[in-house]
Amino acid sequence: MTTQATQETTQAAQAGILGLIRFDAAGLVPVIAQQHDTGEVLMMAWMNAEAVRETLATGRVCYFSRSRKGLWRKGETSGQLQHLRELRVDCDGDTLLLLVHQEGVACHTGRRSCFYRAVRDGAVVEIAAPEVSPEALYGGGGAHGHGHGDADGDGHRHG
Amino acid sequence: MTTQATQETTQAAQAGILGLIRFDAAGLVPVIAQQHDTGEVLMMAWMNAEAVRETLATGRVCYFSRSRKGLWRKGETSGQLQHLRELRVDCDGDTLLLLVHQEGVACHTGRRSCFYRAVRDGAVVEIAAPEVSPEALYGGGGAHGHGHGDADGDGHRHG
Repeated sequence: MTTQATQETTQAAQAGILGLIRFDAAGLVPVIAQQHDTGEVLMMAWMNAEAVRETLATGRVCYFSRSRKGLWRKGETSGQLQHLRELRVDCDGDTLLLLVHQEGVACHTGRRSCFYRAVRDGAVVEIAAPEVSPEALYGGGGAHGHGHGDADGDGHRHG
Repeated sequence: MTTQATQETTQAAQAGILGLIRFDAAGLVPVIAQQHDTGEVLMMAWMNAEAVRETLATGRVCYFSRSRKGLWRKGETSGQLQHLRELRVDCDGDTLLLLVHQEGVACHTGRRSCFYRAVRDGAVVEIAAPEVSPEALYGGGGAHGHGHGDADGDGHRHG
């Protein structure tokens, strides 16, 4: 297969998947990231069409930050990259599931998964501890330089 | 523990988890359903506060249908119930993860998971076949009676 044919195949796949996705009124689609081998659900974030294209083209997961209103290349600040293994789309095209290999931790709190709080025995409990400190992920004094409040969370940082 | 104390504990847990959830402008939160033992991601849907309360109180998963604008008790039509094993909330409170036991299939197409389309080798392919027919799930002639188009999908049925 020639390079041109490969590019055409890639472009066809991108066009195919983009044609299946039903972006919302804001041009976004929710995206679930799951560790490909353990099945652990790591996080949920959002993509626009450009983020989908970049993720498929580079193999590194790129979201769309609703607070910063721009592409959010996961790990660009924290080094905690997500490598794409497979992109899936659901039956009605309004949610994506990414199978990924997560380097380090997915959560800005330093935990492996963002879903570390559970209802157990009638109480809300933390079921996972940070593996690294947020300071180690984002730097001490420099944290405010890139730690912006997300539209959906207080002080949510984009790692 | 008295029945009253049990009820108070349950109410406290509900108040605790509801206080952590950041519902969107429409009063909804996205919810990921994952099979508790296999790790399979089954579907993504939405809940309002009432759906969260009912799910915690009954142990049967209840969503909010954006198209029908009302509670959607998963399986009430199709019989494909979801039994709650654990409810988790993410770091910024804007997504829920439910560990469930899914009876039968989660997807209205008759597939176990809604995420049955994947990008592989430069093409979009189906990676799972229906385990039951939609007609078996929803009835033949009666399908139109409860099969409403969802706001997020063409002809999406609420099983």
